[in-house]
This record gives sequence, C-alpha cells and structure tokens, in this order.
Amino acid sequence: MRRKWWGWGDPNKVDELESHPTLYSFLKSQLNLSGSESYPTARAEDIKLPESKLTKDLMAELIRVTAPENVCGGDIARLIHSAGLGYKDIIRLRRGLLPDYVDAVVYPVDERQVVKVLKVCEENYIEVLPYGGGSSVVGSFEVIRDRGSGGVIAVDMTVMGRLMKLDATSGLATFEAGVSGPDIEAQLAPHGFTLGHFPQSFEYSTLGGWIATRSAGSSSDIYGKIEDMVVSLRVATPKGIVETKTVPKSAAGPDLRQLFLGSEGTMGIITQATMVVRRVPQAKAYSSFLFKSFDRGIEALRQLVQSRVKGSTLRLSDERETWAFYNSAGEAVSTSSKLKQEVGKWYVAKRGFSFEDGSLLMAITQGGPNEIDGERKFIADVCHAHGGISLGSSPAEAWLESRFDQPYLRDSMISHGIMVDTLETATVWSNVRRLHDAVAVAITTELERRGFSSLVTCHLSHSYPSGSSLYFTFMSRQQEGKELDQWEAVKYAATSAIVENGGTISHHHGVGLEHSRWMVAEDGEQGVAALKALKAALDPKGILNPGKLLPRKEARTP
Amino acid sequence: MRRKWWGWGDPNKVDELESHPTLYSFLKSQLNLSGSESYPTARAEDIKLPESKLTKDLMAELIRVTAPENVCGGDIARLIHSAGLGYKDIIRLRRGLLPDYVDAVVYPVDERQVVKVLKVCEENYIEVLPYGGGSSVVGSFEVIRDRGSGGVIAVDMTVMGRLMKLDATSGLATFEAGVSGPDIEAQLAPHGFTLGHFPQSFEYSTLGGWIATRSAGSSSDIYGKIEDMVVSLRVATPKGIVETKTVPKSAAGPDLRQLFLGSEGTMGIITQATMVVRRVPQAKAYSSFLFKSFDRGIEALRQLVQSRVKGSTLRLSDERETWAFYNSAGEAVSTSSKLKQEVGKWYVAKRGFSFEDGSLLMAITQGGPNEIDGERKFIADVCHAHGGISLGSSPAEAWLESRFDQPYLRDSMISHGIMVDTLETATVWSNVRRLHDAVAVAITTELERRGFSSLVTCHLSHSYPSGSSLYFTFMSRQQEGKELDQWEAVKYAATSAIVENGGTISHHHGVGLEHSRWMVAEDGEQGVAALKALKAALDPKGILNPGKLLPRKEARTP
Repeated sequence: MRRKWWGWGDPNKVDELESHPTLYSFLKSQLNLSGSESYPTARAEDIKLPESKLTKDLMAELIRVTAPENVCGGDIARLIHSAGLGYKDIIRLRRGLLPDYVDAVVYPVDERQVVKVLKVCEENYIEVLPYGGGSSVVGSFEVIRDRGSGGVIAVDMTVMGRLMKLDATSGLATFEAGVSGPDIEAQLAPHGFTLGHFPQSFEYSTLGGWIATRSAGSSSDIYGKIEDMVVSLRVATPKGIVETKTVPKSAAGPDLRQLFLGSEGTMGIITQATMVVRRVPQAKAYSSFLFKSFDRGIEALRQLVQSRVKGSTLRLSDERETWAFYNSAGEAVSTSSKLKQEVGKWYVAKRGFSFEDGSLLMAITQGGPNEIDGERKFIADVCHAHGGISLGSSPAEAWLESRFDQPYLRDSMISHGIMVDTLETATVWSNVRRLHDAVAVAITTELERRGFSSLVTCHLSHSYPSGSSLYFTFMSRQQEGKELDQWEAVKYAATSAIVENGGTISHHHGVGLEHSRWMVAEDGEQGVAALKALKAALDPKGILNPGKLLPRKEARTP
Repeated sequence: MRRKWWGWGDPNKVDELESHPTLYSFLKSQLNLSGSESYPTARAEDIKLPESKLTKDLMAELIRVTAPENVCGGDIARLIHSAGLGYKDIIRLRRGLLPDYVDAVVYPVDERQVVKVLKVCEENYIEVLPYGGGSSVVGSFEVIRDRGSGGVIAVDMTVMGRLMKLDATSGLATFEAGVSGPDIEAQLAPHGFTLGHFPQSFEYSTLGGWIATRSAGSSSDIYGKIEDMVVSLRVATPKGIVETKTVPKSAAGPDLRQLFLGSEGTMGIITQATMVVRRVPQAKAYSSFLFKSFDRGIEALRQLVQSRVKGSTLRLSDERETWAFYNSAGEAVSTSSKLKQEVGKWYVAKRGFSFEDGSLLMAITQGGPNEIDGERKFIADVCHAHGGISLGSSPAEAWLESRFDQPYLRDSMISHGIMVDTLETATVWSNVRRLHDAVAVAITTELERRGFSSLVTCHLSHSYPSGSSLYFTFMSRQQEGKELDQWEAVKYAATSAIVENGGTISHHHGVGLEHSRWMVAEDGEQGVAALKALKAALDPKGILNPGKLLPRKEARTP
C-alpha cells in the first residue's frame, strides 16, 4: 500500500482544483478567495526527523521477534505513521513537522509476530500505535509519548492481508485484519461474494481499522455498518489472545466483540475477523429527486427508512450542499454535461423548484431485477408524495463515480489556501433539523467572528428507523500562519454544538485524540470509568495507543 | 403481576395433560410411562422458611429509603424471589425447599428509590438479586450467599412499569424497566405502535429482564432480538447512574449498552430503556410446509433468510418435533381437527411424505397486504423448490395460538412425573446439522445410560444470514427421588456437546448459574477477566447478583 506521504492516496494521482473551473469559481465567490492563496508542501529530502528514542537493543529485540525487513526506522515511514489524514494532520505533514514521531515501524507478517511484538513492548514499556491504512481524521496516530517509556512504535498491519477461510454455506469470510478494501473484494470476487463495505477511504484503509473505528461505507444502508457485519474477532492483547465465538447470535453475557469494536487500538490489536459476506448484487439502479426544502426531504427519507426499503443507499443533501453539488458535479461527468445542466435548471425552475434552496436525494438501489423495480417504484412514490421531482439517474451516478477521488481534490484545495474538513454525528429523527442548524450556525459564527466567509454543507447519508447521521463539510479561506488555531476553534465550536444538541460525537470517524475530551460528555463519568477498567484488565501497563479514546490525565509510568 | 408460587403464571389457570389425550398417550408410549407417575406440590401453609438474616436496623433502613409497603418479608414472597422457573427451580419450589432464600423483597417505585436501595446495600454489604418477572430458566435467582454479607435481598422491579416518553417521529418509546410484556403493548397500542417482542414468558416477564438476558421472542426474525431494539439505557450501579446516549448509531468508542445487555443483574439494575417501536402491522398470514427430511428443510430455511425475507417468523422442526407436533397440535385447536388431521395424513402419505420422518416449517408473515402477498409467494416458491408440500395455514395458526399456554402444560407434565425442559444454542449454517445431532445424541445417551427412554425434539426458530438458533425440548420419566441428579446429568451432557461442537452456551436464555461454569469455554480466560474487571469497576464490593454469569471462586468479603 504505497501512498503519498503528505496527503491522500496514490503518489502519482492528482485532481487539481483548476480542472473544476465552475467549482473553483463558486468557491472563490463563496469563500472570498482571490485565487492567489496557497499552502506549500516541503520537499521529502528536506525532512529530517529527530533521532529514534529506541535503544539499539530494543530495535534488535523487535527484529529478533519478526525479521530485519519487518522493522523500519526510516524518516518518511516514521513520519507517515505518526499522523492520520485529517486536515490538521495534513497541515502538519506538508511541513514535515509533527508534535512527535514514532521511533520505528514494525510490520508483523502473522498473528504470532503480533503477539511477540506486544510481549517485547509490554516487557520493555514500549508504547504501541496499532496502524492500518492510516486514514484517521480524528488524530488517532498523533504520538503522545510518556517520557518514562522506552519508545513508541507503530505496528503496521498491512502485510497481514489474507483470506483465511471462506464458509460459503454460512456466508462467512475470515480475513487477517490488515487486509485493504480492494484486497477484500478481490479475494471474495472469484467466489461471487462481496463484503459490501465502501468507506470513502476504501482504497487506503483496512478491515482492522474499520472495526476499530466502527466505520461506515457508502452501502451501509444496505449492508449495515462494519459492527453489523462482524461475527467474530481474534484480538492480541498484552495479556493474551481474546477470541470470540463464531456464532450468529448469543445470550452468553455481554457481547465481547463490542469491547473491541470502536476500541481504536487501545484494548488490543485486532488480528483476524470473521465477516458476513453477501452474494454480489445482480444489478444496480440510480435515481435522484429534488425537494423544495431540506425539511420535505427529511420527511421523505424518514418515511423510506421507516418502511421496508432495505436495498438502497439513500443520501439527502441540505440546501447548501445541493447548491454546491449543482455547482460542481456537472463538469466532472461528461463534456455535454454543461448543456444538460442548463436544460435541467430550466426544467426545475419551470416547475417552481430551485437548486439554490432545494434538497437533493440520491438513491442507489441494488438486488435482483424484480426487487430493484419494486423498490425504485416505492422510492419514487414516496418522494413524489412529499413534493419531490425526479431528476433521473445522472446525479446519483456522478456522485458514486467521483467519490473515491474527492480526497485528491481536497489536497488541491488545501494547496490553494482553503481550509476544508468534514465531521459527522447522528441523532434521532425528531432532532435532526435542530442539530443540523445548531452545528451549521456554530461553524459559520466562529468563522465570521474570525473574519472569514464560509461554506457549510451537510447530508444525511446513513439512516435508520430511529434517526440519521449528519455529515458536514466546512470550508473557508485558511487563516495564514494560524491554520491550526483556526481549525481548532471551528472544531471546538462544532463539537460543542453537537454535544449540547443531542448528537453523538461521532457516527463513523471515531474518537481518536480530537474527540477524547468529549468522552465524558458522551458516556458519563461511570461509563468512562468502566471502559478504563476494561482497558486496565487487557492492557495493564497502558502501552496501547496511549492518550487516545479515553483521556488520560497523567502519563503512566512502567 | 400476581402469579403461582410453585409454577408458571396465573394461579387460577391450569392446562392438564389429561385434556390432551392424544399427546398423553403419545408421551406414555415414547417415555415408557405407566400413567401412575406423579410429583407432588406442598401446601403453601406448610411452607416455613428460615428466619431472615437481615437485622431489624437494616430492614428499617430499607423501609426508610422506600416505604413500609415497598418492603416485604413474607415467606411466599421470599420463596418466589429465590428461584426462577426452570425445571430445577420447579422441582424445588413445589417442595418449598430451596438451597437458600432472600431475606426480604424490596419493590422500588422509581429510579431514585433504586439508587437509594443500592446505596444502603453497598454501605452495609447486602447482596442484591435484581428481579423482573422471575422467569429465568438458568438459575439466575438461586441465592448464593456470602456468609460475610449482611443479607440478601431481591429488588423486584415490577412496580416500575410506566411509559415515560413516546417519540412517534423517531419511533422510540422510553419505558421504566419493570414493565411487563402485556403492559408494554397496552401502553403502545393507543398510539398505533408495537414493540414486537413476544417471548414465551411474555405475560410474566419484564423489559429489564429481557435486556439483562438478551431475550428473543416469536417475532424476533422480524423485529430482531431485544438487543437489536435497545437504543439507550439508564442503569443504576453502586457507583452511580450510567446513561447511554439516545442516538441511532455511534462510533464513540465501544458501545456502552453492550456492557448491560446480557449482564443479568451483575453490573447494575436497568431502570429505563428507550426502545425502537414499530407501527402495528396491518395484516398477518400463515403458511406451513412439510419437507421429506430436516436436511431439506434446513436448506430451504437457509435460502429464505439469506434472501430478502424480512417480514416473516420462520420456524423449522426436526423429524422428532414434527412427529410430536402432529401428535399434539390437532386436539387443542378445534373439535373437527381430528378429522382434518386424518385427511391431512392421507394426503401427505399419498404424496410420499410422512409426519413421522418429515420436517415442518411454519411461517407467519406480516406487513401491508401487498408485502405479505409477495413474501408468501417467495416463501412458497423456495419451499416447493426444496421439495416441500404446503400444509395450509392451520399448523402455524395452532402453534401461535397455544404458545403462551405451553408452560401451564409443562406444570401438568411435571405433576405427572415427567422431566421436561428446554435448552437452546446457535451456530453457523455449515454446522447446524452436526450440532443438532451431537446434542440430541448426548441427551438420549445420558438418559439411556440411566435407564430412561426419552423424547428429544428441536426446532430452528431464530435464523440469520450466517446461521440459526437450535431450540431443544427433552423429556423422560422422572428418576424418582433423584429428580435433580437426573436433570443435572442431562444438562451437563447437553452443554458439553454444545461447547464441543461449536455452539454458544445460550442463544436467548442467558447464563445465570447453570451456564456460568462454561463461561471460560465461551469467552476465554482473557474475555472473562475483562468482564470481571468491568464488574469490579461498576460494583466494587460485588453485591450485585453474586455468583451468576461470572463464576466467582471465593466469596467476597466487604
């Protein structure tokens, strides 16, 4: 999994803002950009990290329990493994300057090596950052070193990517946890199965990372979030292996899997997972609808997920996102799209709708041909009943086609001096609109206070009978020289608004470092105490991903 | 919730084996009964319990934090609250002789009182049995007293039965945890909602009990098990209240709810739960099919649940259960049923099938009329494709109609000298047949060894894309004077077979005392250590349901 050290994905792939002229001009006007803004990237050869704090003996010990080629102390490897890929990480990475760095990276090739590495680390009080694809956007890989420790290493799991067992009768596949999204699908495809988990980080993230962060993907409305697909786990902890039973359901006490789902590397290193897999759907169909307002769209979406719609990804944009989508989607798709777009605008306006204050719903329906037809018709009926008009298949197709490219465009936006980040939450239906408005206002107000115009967009992309996730994207011109201050202030304002208005601090990005200060607000004093006790039982020395998920007031000594 | 002290349910209701002559004669021949066997029940007035070990001061203290009418020290109340309703419990209850008894029963009227009672118990090292409907069949209410404790009380939650909040938009209802099944449905019905949870204990069990044991009900194929419906919880622990967020889904670390789902009163007392509720279905339809073998039935059922069947309860009986059902179901339903049965037998035989070695699938489909029609047709198509023949609606109707009465019939069977009990497990599809045979053989062999004929039946009543539950009923003549020895031996043989053949020790009955010795086999040393650490954090003195779920080697001292 070779990747760019300073930003997203494939080192040879770029998606420049300049090749999206309509979008760029839209952003210039919205964000008050002159077009001359920029944020530079250091040259790799200029990056010099402080020396590793691991003694030669400890390095030798790590090599002894793995192999020389499985331990790396190079600067770029250390840099990459000391940050995630959130806005804050990228701002720092591009300068080659992080608060601290892991001292080495270990790449175990199997579970036995993971266990041995943990044993060495436990015995020598080396702190461990379990690492999959490294795509955290919540600070999960920031190094928070206990000065009393013998060092900090990253355990990169990406060598462990095998399909270990396929039980086709039960629809179960057992993978090593370091397997990447594409490698999962490539190993299942010959058998006619899919896992059906497609987060935006799909190409550069791992199964273990998904499980450790309770990941969601674009088809989670159909297949469930990752926690809904995990049937059993094997986890290496400093106290030994924890293995849960491979059974469909149990009443044998609290569900052990749940201790590791969302544990973010603090309770153990997930080494293997047995997952529900499904037959690759026979067909897909796309549809899109425009509502006169976000409120009408919310009502339609709620009715859909509270009915028997089970085979469709549903994604509803608020007014700002609908307008931004209109100003960006067209040009990426085809050369004739501009014309189509104008025709579409005319048609929409003629019927009394507008992209500027409308709300766009996209539906991707999959299954057998008959199932698709029935479900599409039901979706159309419900949307029409809520005053929606059909926009055909192209908006949904355009979105699905371009989604894995969006992080590349984000890199270019940052280069052009734009602060751009996302955050997500979830709440019950009766509270969706209140939470939506509170978060949007909090971000806009904080940026205004600092003298910046902003663009804050939102969609509901994972919905449930009882409520929905809300996924926000926010942008403004970077505050030059104070890029991180600006971001911290916005993040603080937004998360405060979430906590004060009935949202969860994360629907699928996790907690990491960024949200850890809010864990008491989320789970209460007793809840956090219970999780800390759990961690102490599994990781008594506190070597695993210290300072993440559960805030620690003081560093532990060995 | 007034109930019989020595057996199931309504004190005024009986269902005598004599009113099921066909069944009784079938059982006589299967179990080698003379018909003169019996097991007596003591008279209530003859039951004298040992004196309460609670001091007068502590009784006064419990009354002070509640009210005089909320604390009870009567013999029958103490007896009922010191046992569940498994076979072992009933054998003991009928003699009025349990291994030990709670010293008093406290009935809190609200969460504040629960907190206060726990505080008194924590301060004075009084052990606490949280108690809902008392229908445990795994020994959850057996008193295992630490001699160093100041006493043992039951906290009976059944006064706390209010619907606290209904959020119709989000489809969420918040109940006090002591609410009974009928009271849940009665409070939801005026609003057009149902919880959809109908365990066989429905009439005499509570929401808190369901949550604490990961209960399943007859419609769980449609609505999910209870753990799938809980959106948030409030739990009183000796360290304070734990409250989880009311959000549809979260990635904020491990899922706190899961620490209490299946905690069986060992981690805290569930005081309130916010549940997903659904609109009452418009219609129901029944269908039944007979397969030439259990294997053919399993294949059909697997295909149904791995497809899009979402609105049907599906229940597949093995050959022995199909034969027993044929020999029992008809007579309870209607006077003309005997004739129908004969006609049915003739029709079935003519087509080359037999009830004696066939496998019966019952389906109850619900939803809107259109949904029902589509799903029923799909079910029929799949069953026919696997060689099944349709038996019409009556077997499924008969089963659904009589299911809440079966525990009354069990009481009569016990009176007639029959050992009758059930146990359940779950496994993946590829292992269903192996596990089924292993458990049936283990039970039959153990009983044979002791010189008893037996009847062991099984059905798959809760199925998932990856596997299914297996629900066994076993019967034999009681071993007179050694009723408990006989039962223990069978239970041990069956559970050993489950553990050795890839099953979970419980799919929905829980762990209690009976399965606690198997928890290490289920969760591993590290898994159990993690759960114990969790309990120690929430209940440091170990006052909550001691000796249950997590085996304790030695009693704690305060």
